[in-house]
Amino acid sequence: MIKAVVGIDIGGTSTKFGIVDSKGQCLGVNSIATGRYRDFDKFSENLYREIQDLIESLGKDINIKGVGVGAPNANFYRGTIENGPNLKWKGIVPFVKKFKKYFLNMPVVLTNDANAAALGEMFYGGAKNMKNFVVITLGTGLGSAFIVDGKLVYGHDGLAGELGHVNVEQNGRICRCGNKGCLEAYVSATGIKRTFLNLLCARSEKSDLRHVSFNELTSKRIYDAARKGDVIALEAFAITGEILGMKLSDVVAITNPEAIFILGGVAQAGDLVFKPTRQFMEKNLFPVFRGKVKILPSKLKGENAAVLGAGALAWKELNI
Amino acid sequence: MIKAVVGIDIGGTSTKFGIVDSKGQCLGVNSIATGRYRDFDKFSENLYREIQDLIESLGKDINIKGVGVGAPNANFYRGTIENGPNLKWKGIVPFVKKFKKYFLNMPVVLTNDANAAALGEMFYGGAKNMKNFVVITLGTGLGSAFIVDGKLVYGHDGLAGELGHVNVEQNGRICRCGNKGCLEAYVSATGIKRTFLNLLCARSEKSDLRHVSFNELTSKRIYDAARKGDVIALEAFAITGEILGMKLSDVVAITNPEAIFILGGVAQAGDLVFKPTRQFMEKNLFPVFRGKVKILPSKLKGENAAVLGAGALAWKELNI
Repeated sequence: MIKAVVGIDIGGTSTKFGIVDSKGQCLGVNSIATGRYRDFDKFSENLYREIQDLIESLGKDINIKGVGVGAPNANFYRGTIENGPNLKWKGIVPFVKKFKKYFLNMPVVLTNDANAAALGEMFYGGAKNMKNFVVITLGTGLGSAFIVDGKLVYGHDGLAGELGHVNVEQNGRICRCGNKGCLEAYVSATGIKRTFLNLLCARSEKSDLRHVSFNELTSKRIYDAARKGDVIALEAFAITGEILGMKLSDVVAITNPEAIFILGGVAQAGDLVFKPTRQFMEKNLFPVFRGKVKILPSKLKGENAAVLGAGALAWKELNI
Repeated sequence: MIKAVVGIDIGGTSTKFGIVDSKGQCLGVNSIATGRYRDFDKFSENLYREIQDLIESLGKDINIKGVGVGAPNANFYRGTIENGPNLKWKGIVPFVKKFKKYFLNMPVVLTNDANAAALGEMFYGGAKNMKNFVVITLGTGLGSAFIVDGKLVYGHDGLAGELGHVNVEQNGRICRCGNKGCLEAYVSATGIKRTFLNLLCARSEKSDLRHVSFNELTSKRIYDAARKGDVIALEAFAITGEILGMKLSDVVAITNPEAIFILGGVAQAGDLVFKPTRQFMEKNLFPVFRGKVKILPSKLKGENAAVLGAGALAWKELNI
């Protein structure tokens, strides 16, 4: 009999789930399309069925001990998903309360996706021997998780880690949270797009992307252009790293981490993002921290990283 | 027999010390002039003698169980004071190693002054029932301490909590740390002075302080002028609160505290600092945190607050 947990990563487009053993091996994964379910109850019912199907399909004697879930805007203390951006279930969804009926007599634990990623990194990835580190998930939005003395920082309301919403510029770009000038509005995938188009207007160099509309443009296309030597695209990545690096120096001043991991779609741009980020963090660091803090990519490569993180959350709960 | 600890607060001008019982009562206090000792060994020898004299003068049967010390740039992990600003002992002073010879067989614990203040607030002050809060010490410099889940955040190198050195403005004011644009250069006592003199140059209103030189000017004089209705002095405090409030909204986004305590000389200005700070923190907050985070003065009033904080550090060590 193999002891295992279910790891679930809920995203706006798809929900991935997998069976994770105690060594961090993903025994099987699958996914369903989150966006197809306007009704949360139907979503959870179908998710449960698919999980059962997955377990059966593995053809092994698997004993599920717990369920870990990562989701945007998840509240660990309350077990709720609260006004998740890009999710169709509005308001406060009592996820744990509703999902627990399928998994009686075992822990069902929910945390936000960045926290789950941080646990994955700590259990199975590059932070295995670290007690103090930060994880930044850089994709459509900017999520973050802070590990202090080996534990996730949840804060008073369970909502700590909103680094995407620290201020870069007073009266700056409108953010989807309603505020102006948030970090997320500058360095997320959409932020890079906004930076690139601003530069396109300010400068006169040729660019293959001058014929592309705002809606058609993606950070991936800007990345591809940069790789081909598009100077405006290169500049957009440089500015992104400059702003992110500057704010990461603030993060270091406050929490003194050993390392900062940057994950997610935008992190795939590699040195285009990492190099200027490292350079400008270092430039802005309080002198005593200089040369001490690593900025690293995730060691959890591939499709299953988020599922492993959610699995780690469940194993962590079981080990307490 | 009364069980007690010694609480010591080392500052650039004076070092205060006191005998603190387990209920947070200060049985006696005294101080020596830090600045008179260029040699650390002479300082510590004399400090020890004075502590003995104080204990004897109390005429009670006191049993000292431990020693807690708060000092600028103190490293909790290493027990050292590292290049303390305003201290005459340069380089790295191995405080605990050297001072322990006077207090054998009991814990001698050192932490930075803001951390000691936070413990004082948690043990004896306004944070008694709080698990997640922040303490800002606002005087000549800006110190800070972060309590997460009931514990001080030390970070990887024991140097967390350098909120004074987050960036307010790229290429802004020179800070004593060598960087440009640090928060401390704007909102500390010296920061207010710089803001006030900038305003004095930019504006034309009358001010009693137009005849005062940079060196003669103090935040106390600006405070007194503001109380008398000096519009430039009032504006200087408003700007101070605006900048501090903006950066505190970043702190909330990252750590989600229940409250932020502001202590120290500048906090004595009361509403002149607290009102704009609250207003601008609120304005910049990520929506989910609005109306939830208190900005409070210390409940440890009076001269003995720092000594009580250092005492709390020793009691905390004894209770582990």
